[in-house]
Amino acid sequence: MALELYWGSGSPFSWRVMLTLELKRLPYESKLLEFSKEDHKSYEYLKLNPRGKVPTLKDGDFVLYESLAIMAYLDRKYPDPPIFGETPQETGRIWRSISETDSYVIPPGTKLVIPIFFGKGLEKTNEIQEAASAIREELKRADTALADSDWLVGARVSAADIALLPLIQLILRVASKDAAKPLKLGLLPLDQSYPNIAAWVKRVEAIPGYERTYPPHWK
Amino acid sequence: MALELYWGSGSPFSWRVMLTLELKRLPYESKLLEFSKEDHKSYEYLKLNPRGKVPTLKDGDFVLYESLAIMAYLDRKYPDPPIFGETPQETGRIWRSISETDSYVIPPGTKLVIPIFFGKGLEKTNEIQEAASAIREELKRADTALADSDWLVGARVSAADIALLPLIQLILRVASKDAAKPLKLGLLPLDQSYPNIAAWVKRVEAIPGYERTYPPHWK
Repeated sequence: MALELYWGSGSPFSWRVMLTLELKRLPYESKLLEFSKEDHKSYEYLKLNPRGKVPTLKDGDFVLYESLAIMAYLDRKYPDPPIFGETPQETGRIWRSISETDSYVIPPGTKLVIPIFFGKGLEKTNEIQEAASAIREELKRADTALADSDWLVGARVSAADIALLPLIQLILRVASKDAAKPLKLGLLPLDQSYPNIAAWVKRVEAIPGYERTYPPHWK
Repeated sequence: MALELYWGSGSPFSWRVMLTLELKRLPYESKLLEFSKEDHKSYEYLKLNPRGKVPTLKDGDFVLYESLAIMAYLDRKYPDPPIFGETPQETGRIWRSISETDSYVIPPGTKLVIPIFFGKGLEKTNEIQEAASAIREELKRADTALADSDWLVGARVSAADIALLPLIQLILRVASKDAAKPLKLGLLPLDQSYPNIAAWVKRVEAIPGYERTYPPHWK
């Protein structure tokens, strides 16, 4: 039975799973939920995912949500190519990178996305600029890590890259909005401030199938 | 060479790793950092962990931080007993549970810990009570999951249990403080509101070596 992926356009967490599926060359049935129609709050969907969030994967009778969980499941069931490392040290470093993304990039990222995309709290300039400063610090760390290496951990693309890339793309998109310009977030242009990240983004974009994962409403 | 664990008393993230080490019966050298002396911000420690957080594990020359990363590393290097599942489905469900802990228990938990332990923002009663309400909802989910099962996922203790238990203990400790009483958080007594969680806590506490992981300054 085919894999089915329930996802939303622009959700970085959905994007992580789509990149995983492409890397592992796993065909899947796309179930695009429209947030504007509240598809993710429908009775049918809440039976699959009671939190009403995306993504959710269905593999036969097995249903799973939370992006990292789906990635870990897919890697264990379809291990070629491995995305969580081939040695204990690689596994540890990959999960460290993912933990750092989730603990230190997502919280300040959310503090940019909500006001700039949705106009909620746009007047709290100090908070937004503090968040941008935290993001700049994380980008600097990533840029340094990518100075000597094509990928965040090890010699090939891994779950560390896949977990971070959609958030970087989302943050760059937010930073490019008109509402962001007066805020002077100091994030763009990427290739000036963070040249190694800019080169890494291009490497991820060159993954076969990447274009299928790109949020359709961003095109 | 022995494992060395740098940790802090009362840090739920340190506690996760200590429980992992006990479950796997791995001896280790304890390096207790004193937060009050700023040991975690010392030059020597920042060389191991530039974020100045706990825990950090040293295994010979290999240094790793972030609790989940250390757990994943230890499980891969010392797989007996496995704590991330024995099938892809178990692995997926365990990581789902961990993601839910980190995404839905830790943020509101932090909003209780900071005001009640440190007195910062104790006047923001509404925010604290909203956080308590979010925690009650998560506890209800966990209590339901534990109604038919001794452990959060599968037939034995796993990383899901280990990741959650220290946070539950921390939240219970916060709720028992005098400063919490006027706030009517509705979290205690645990065995009245969440009897299945209360029974599960006792099961975790019965793990051999548990007493070695209990925060010394809580005793």
